[in-house]
Amino acid sequence: MVKTIISVDPKKLPWEQGQDGETPLHNRWHPSIPPVATVEEGQVFRVECVDWTGGQIKNDDNSDDVKNVDLSQVHYLSGPIAIPTAQPGDLLKVELLNLGTLDGDEWGFTGTFAKENGGGFLTDHYPCASKAIWDLDGIYCSSRHIPGVKFAGLIHPGLIGTAPSPELLQMWNEREAKLCSEEGTPEEKTLCGCLSTRPLACLPEPKGAMLGKLGHFKDKAGNDETWDTIAQEAARTVPGRENGGNCDIKNLSRGSTVYFPVFVPGANLSMGDMHFSQGDGEVSFCGAIEMSGFLDLRCTVIKDGMQMLPVVGPSPLSVNPVFEIGPLEPRYSEWLVFEGVSVDEKGVQHYLDATIAYKRAVLNCIKYLAKFGYTEQQVYLMLSCIPCEGRISGIVDVPNACATLAIPLAIFDRDVRPPMSMDKLEQLANGIRVLKQDVCLSTEGGAVPNDPRLG
Amino acid sequence: MVKTIISVDPKKLPWEQGQDGETPLHNRWHPSIPPVATVEEGQVFRVECVDWTGGQIKNDDNSDDVKNVDLSQVHYLSGPIAIPTAQPGDLLKVELLNLGTLDGDEWGFTGTFAKENGGGFLTDHYPCASKAIWDLDGIYCSSRHIPGVKFAGLIHPGLIGTAPSPELLQMWNEREAKLCSEEGTPEEKTLCGCLSTRPLACLPEPKGAMLGKLGHFKDKAGNDETWDTIAQEAARTVPGRENGGNCDIKNLSRGSTVYFPVFVPGANLSMGDMHFSQGDGEVSFCGAIEMSGFLDLRCTVIKDGMQMLPVVGPSPLSVNPVFEIGPLEPRYSEWLVFEGVSVDEKGVQHYLDATIAYKRAVLNCIKYLAKFGYTEQQVYLMLSCIPCEGRISGIVDVPNACATLAIPLAIFDRDVRPPMSMDKLEQLANGIRVLKQDVCLSTEGGAVPNDPRLG
Amino acid sequence: MVKTIISVDPKKLPWEQGQDGETPLHNRWHPSIPPVATVEEGQVFRVECVDWTGGQIKNDDNSDDVKNVDLSQVHYLSGPIAIPTAQPGDLLKVELLNLGTLDGDEWGFTGTFAKENGGGFLTDHYPCASKAIWDLDGIYCSSRHIPGVKFAGLIHPGLIGTAPSPELLQMWNEREAKLCSEEGTPEEKTLCGCLSTRPLACLPEPKGAMLGKLGHFKDKAGNDETWDTIAQEAARTVPGRENGGNCDIKNLSRGSTVYFPVFVPGANLSMGDMHFSQGDGEVSFCGAIEMSGFLDLRCTVIKDGMQMLPVVGPSPLSVNPVFEIGPLEPRYSEWLVFEGVSVDEKGVQHYLDATIAYKRAVLNCIKYLAKFGYTEQQVYLMLSCIPCEGRISGIVDVPNACATLAIPLAIFDRDVRPPMSMDKLEQLANGIRVLKQDVCLSTEGGAVPNDPRLG
Amino acid sequence: MVKTIISVDPKKLPWEQGQDGETPLHNRWHPSIPPVATVEEGQVFRVECVDWTGGQIKNDDNSDDVKNVDLSQVHYLSGPIAIPTAQPGDLLKVELLNLGTLDGDEWGFTGTFAKENGGGFLTDHYPCASKAIWDLDGIYCSSRHIPGVKFAGLIHPGLIGTAPSPELLQMWNEREAKLCSEEGTPEEKTLCGCLSTRPLACLPEPKGAMLGKLGHFKDKAGNDETWDTIAQEAARTVPGRENGGNCDIKNLSRGSTVYFPVFVPGANLSMGDMHFSQGDGEVSFCGAIEMSGFLDLRCTVIKDGMQMLPVVGPSPLSVNPVFEIGPLEPRYSEWLVFEGVSVDEKGVQHYLDATIAYKRAVLNCIKYLAKFGYTEQQVYLMLSCIPCEGRISGIVDVPNACATLAIPLAIFDRDVRPPMSMDKLEQLANGIRVLKQDVCLSTEGGAVPNDPRLG
Repeated sequence: MVKTIISVDPKKLPWEQGQDGETPLHNRWHPSIPPVATVEEGQVFRVECVDWTGGQIKNDDNSDDVKNVDLSQVHYLSGPIAIPTAQPGDLLKVELLNLGTLDGDEWGFTGTFAKENGGGFLTDHYPCASKAIWDLDGIYCSSRHIPGVKFAGLIHPGLIGTAPSPELLQMWNEREAKLCSEEGTPEEKTLCGCLSTRPLACLPEPKGAMLGKLGHFKDKAGNDETWDTIAQEAARTVPGRENGGNCDIKNLSRGSTVYFPVFVPGANLSMGDMHFSQGDGEVSFCGAIEMSGFLDLRCTVIKDGMQMLPVVGPSPLSVNPVFEIGPLEPRYSEWLVFEGVSVDEKGVQHYLDATIAYKRAVLNCIKYLAKFGYTEQQVYLMLSCIPCEGRISGIVDVPNACATLAIPLAIFDRDVRPPMSMDKLEQLANGIRVLKQDVCLSTEGGAVPNDPRLG
Repeated sequence: MVKTIISVDPKKLPWEQGQDGETPLHNRWHPSIPPVATVEEGQVFRVECVDWTGGQIKNDDNSDDVKNVDLSQVHYLSGPIAIPTAQPGDLLKVELLNLGTLDGDEWGFTGTFAKENGGGFLTDHYPCASKAIWDLDGIYCSSRHIPGVKFAGLIHPGLIGTAPSPELLQMWNEREAKLCSEEGTPEEKTLCGCLSTRPLACLPEPKGAMLGKLGHFKDKAGNDETWDTIAQEAARTVPGRENGGNCDIKNLSRGSTVYFPVFVPGANLSMGDMHFSQGDGEVSFCGAIEMSGFLDLRCTVIKDGMQMLPVVGPSPLSVNPVFEIGPLEPRYSEWLVFEGVSVDEKGVQHYLDATIAYKRAVLNCIKYLAKFGYTEQQVYLMLSCIPCEGRISGIVDVPNACATLAIPLAIFDRDVRPPMSMDKLEQLANGIRVLKQDVCLSTEGGAVPNDPRLG
Repeated sequence: MVKTIISVDPKKLPWEQGQDGETPLHNRWHPSIPPVATVEEGQVFRVECVDWTGGQIKNDDNSDDVKNVDLSQVHYLSGPIAIPTAQPGDLLKVELLNLGTLDGDEWGFTGTFAKENGGGFLTDHYPCASKAIWDLDGIYCSSRHIPGVKFAGLIHPGLIGTAPSPELLQMWNEREAKLCSEEGTPEEKTLCGCLSTRPLACLPEPKGAMLGKLGHFKDKAGNDETWDTIAQEAARTVPGRENGGNCDIKNLSRGSTVYFPVFVPGANLSMGDMHFSQGDGEVSFCGAIEMSGFLDLRCTVIKDGMQMLPVVGPSPLSVNPVFEIGPLEPRYSEWLVFEGVSVDEKGVQHYLDATIAYKRAVLNCIKYLAKFGYTEQQVYLMLSCIPCEGRISGIVDVPNACATLAIPLAIFDRDVRPPMSMDKLEQLANGIRVLKQDVCLSTEGGAVPNDPRLG
Repeated sequence: MVKTIISVDPKKLPWEQGQDGETPLHNRWHPSIPPVATVEEGQVFRVECVDWTGGQIKNDDNSDDVKNVDLSQVHYLSGPIAIPTAQPGDLLKVELLNLGTLDGDEWGFTGTFAKENGGGFLTDHYPCASKAIWDLDGIYCSSRHIPGVKFAGLIHPGLIGTAPSPELLQMWNEREAKLCSEEGTPEEKTLCGCLSTRPLACLPEPKGAMLGKLGHFKDKAGNDETWDTIAQEAARTVPGRENGGNCDIKNLSRGSTVYFPVFVPGANLSMGDMHFSQGDGEVSFCGAIEMSGFLDLRCTVIKDGMQMLPVVGPSPLSVNPVFEIGPLEPRYSEWLVFEGVSVDEKGVQHYLDATIAYKRAVLNCIKYLAKFGYTEQQVYLMLSCIPCEGRISGIVDVPNACATLAIPLAIFDRDVRPPMSMDKLEQLANGIRVLKQDVCLSTEGGAVPNDPRLG
């Protein structure tokens, strides 16, 4: 029998969750954030999570909420959860036995942030904020903003990890600060603590911080020296790191197992950023079908098991979790595959750059599907959340990395393979154009046109 | 009934293939290389191919041949094949109806090049030449050099594409030369026409060139002005580009379809670099299970169909082929997944660099499997050719790209999931150590030890 | 958002369910049983169900409850549910959007009935009552009574169907009574209304009947003439029939769709007999992992759609539902397959009898796995509920039908393929024998030994 | 390297195959038929096979050849092949490493026999001879006689087995003769040695017998006493039996392994009846896509391994082979499923009869697909050879066995799920009717109409 150890109410604000003013949520990584629950090895338990923004985005047809989102607050995680037998150097085996939506909150959203607010993978091409709402009907989802697709979700936590030790935290902060100081322009600091023409990294930031039992920024900032100290060194949750974290692995769904390194006594496991479905890469950044939800878990400790994890790097802490995928994925048999090589949109050759190659593959797919009657913005959102596979197909054939993006054909209600004539293509496109609805744009302004120089 | 339009003898040298001194092979891309065969639309035809090196590598236990390979000659392709109805602007639909080994040549090789000869994805870690030989038994393969694994192949052409037009060829040459001139050190030119600490790109190189009916370097270089002119501008076959080419897409196997842009009258389709199996990324460079083989194909022309291909870039030629994957892949249900983020082996943070993230994932997997008794060099070769999946899982969570490498558990003859104790791990490792054979190293020197600084 | 229209409490008796003494359950098919809920087309709704016996079987280690089960009461179904727009002649499309366990009731049972109480497919071989209890942990299950197996469930309703019209009900009763009168021995009537050496069919039986809003046998039998009349003609729920019913189709799980014929105004849909997992054939009769649970459904009416259903038989009512399976099954890649032909256990040849062939395949599998250390009774229970596939492989090669039973290898924690030596087999068997626990036998007597004459 | 040990020429008659008048074929089971080839354990070897009729059926549009086929000659098998180390009591592990078509013979046929010549599963419904020809293009096939379907084949030997010992042969002959004597009417002997209203079994029959090196009926019958003796006791190849034989297991394809009992020294393995694809049940009898072809095999002997095979029956010889299916099947994700219960076409109730239930499921599917514009005869042929799955879903719910037939939706070029209106169905049906071609009927008479009494 499953025992719920953390429960949330998606209708409440993050600082209103929990009882007696003690929220079970936090949005920073720090060894001093105290556990909010304790579980025994072998026990099956349920954890409920709010969506990653803590309820900032609404189920409506206006994307102003996405445009004006406060990213200093993300991601709201449930936890930490202590497993008393876990000690530093152990391996924590976490089985994801079941995952689902919260009763009465069966919907999700996919968005693109505005370029001035962090943007996404293709923000130079699609700079405006947008939002699509998805109805979650059992295993399937569909959207009033993106007609013609329906697919089974692969519910997973975008973010799950153990707490860092002080040494690991210091390692993170040093290396990320170094990137910013070398490549960023501090005075332009906006979103994430450093920015040049792009947000480079999200350095520690007390504004917006919620430190669980220690309290949140609204109450504590400037009033509590301990809180201030911790908030100034607590790591942001945006990137995946040695402790797992925001890995956005789309197949980490029902029946998967994760083997986490343990860095602090009790392991202090946290999780959140629930996704109903995500495409490899989560390209639009706010990009999966974001939702609240629950996880049913079981933890086991492998004593001294961190030795099983490979160390690659200068520190014995340079490890990553290992994952095991279960047998219950949707298995599509037919795929259409788009290729990209590491020549950028301006025609410039880059050396084995898989990021550029993948960007090209994604752009190729967007512009291809647009020929079938969708807007490019619709496809951009779609690729962020359908179960598409982004592969590094070739990484050695100098100078071109070759990345591929494969989309399952069965999720479309029409055949999107290349038709045998232009007439047939036009006919199919007209079918979608009739149905097409704009992805909900801000009331504050129309869509920003794609930059024509980017092709 | 299948008609063989190009046949080869894997026991002959490339310039001895064909009849009347007219080899059906070439190893450069150029619009002036004349077709060696013509097929009608709808006709099913067979094309035979030599391995990509043209027979330089032998089925033995010594890797000197890999160490001393002449890379100026690669890749030997069969073709060009003309489809008379195809015109520039059309789309050429090519169905891969069947693929297989050549009778009597049922073996393949996987190698790593020496660092001084181009190396591979992890050449800084594994700088020496090595070679593993695979026995191909029907759909399965196994290697005397890598015990404990057996798997079904997904035979595919690593390289298939249409001929470039003069304009496209010029675009390639200009952008690749620019990369070399900006980042390379010309006087260090060795392998590929330009090198700094790494081979950057392979610029046109008459040495080693084989131009099909126009003749090969041994006969023509310096003796035939036309040949010299073409050889000096013909593109190398190493990277994948707008015409397809060396995309190394591991799932492009039996039952797949490719939609190629047509740039020259007749399309002039060529193919080769047959792989029995490959892992995503083909990390060791000489990395799939390389073999000779055949393809049974059918071509159809979609008039004006190039309009279906998205244009991303400054030229109307900035397109890529689209692929359609068939229903006949091996479908593994259980996977072990390794993660990497864009922090390099020295601990330095990089910004959303998927190439580094994938390198980390691959290193994590190598060092993990080595704990089960394999040498790291064995695993490096293994990952290059088993049907592993390399994914771009997160590409927006600044500053860390997150890449994953998933390996199917069913191909191992023992359970390589994390065992529940160190003792069990040791016991499993001893099982492999008993079987372990070195991947065949050069007689000229022992294995170069891994660089300890790289972790 | 999902609205629960029928809720149950698995701790209550069937006649205690519901409010105001109006239970939402029934256990007979009859057009006069009134609907207990109404839903609109397109609405997503939840239905909760008790287990098929109405709570007679307990989560313990004694099988007396299975031995003494009152089968006159089965199957307790939730419903009927009316869809007001549905009329006779329509087709009712029912989407199974989600299915799951009830909170706090995450366990299930598999049993074999005693031979004198109906038995099962192999009751001549395994005549005693037995029971195995399964723990349901998210998508996975395991049993303290059958060590060494763990697998993902494919939750489905064993029984779902629309209400029969009076004409259809009459057709059922006539043909089943004819079978009994021609082949059965009325005076031996015990379990199902008729029995010779085997229970032949379950004819209408007021004892144990629960007719929903009309009341149940404890209150009504003998006291209410209307009730008595209906109970004497209401069909038992044991067999699958034209309205769907007890089809026990193991893949009818999350994401499936059923197209039901509509025989009465409102369609009157009922369902129950929830299974966590079942093997093809459900060979032990009480044979799936039986549980309580919920279904999230959506109904749509296809006007006049019953014309789409093929009619095979003497009446226009001779139809069957059509099913559509979704993409979310566990997909096992490796199977071990057992064959059976239509020669019975005594060596007698039968003519193209698929039932005997399947019995032989099942016996072959039981006796094979017993060589690995299990008791035959354990395997019999196991085959009834693991996701094994029972196929009719050959049905024309006189005189032998060929049936096969395929078991997925991945569900076992050891390799159960034929080992390469007898020693290895013995070693594996000892591993299981150490773990082996008896499937819980009755306290009233020990296990009845297998009949040695049956081989 | 693969060595071809048996080669055939599909253009020659069976008795013209081989060299020096020694054909490598036989069409009866008998321990005295001498091996035609010998292989070592571990050796990879190729065996070529003619089609099961020995070339009686032609690639044309007239079904007279099917109507007039001489079934006394079937099935022509390649072998026996001796493995010298195999002894009675051993288990012979046979790996099916590869299978394919013969060069230049890439076509196949599916037929229904005339009712008076043995018929098929549904001969009472579809009594006339018919034939569809399939073009085999690599992994795919399509037919000019059945438009709108294209699918990947799962090439397999319909028939493969070891030679029986004298004791086993006697057991076969006795039990099959007993069936005939008890149920058949000897004077009506036609096709198979005994017939009542249906062919019951095929008893030994010298007419048409080919006994390999011992010679064939044309030369030997009546002229060679030894030949006559053996031919009079040699078993027909029609049914699958303890030695494997004609099991028609559709998934026994590339990468599968079979564990055969060894009954005679050397095992004496034979095989034939190559199928490009088959549906479960092979309902039309001549029902797969029948072709010539090759198999690449490897044999290993497990000493005393017959002990691993379960014995079910009165004799220690009452065993069946065990099969292991490989990972390379086409994996379809969406299926439409038809159900049948054990009520026959006249409305009569039968007791748990899986054969009748499966017949009903097949008829339901035929009549359903006919609504989409096909003729019933076309669908009957189609179901015999597409990769459909025939399952025994419920075998205990008295009185109804429930069988299901699942067809993969992806093989059709249009959507054959129930459309949402009658108009849409009519529109789809018109699309097929335009394309429809008759399955080639005999010149000797038109199609026999379906028996209207059978519904």
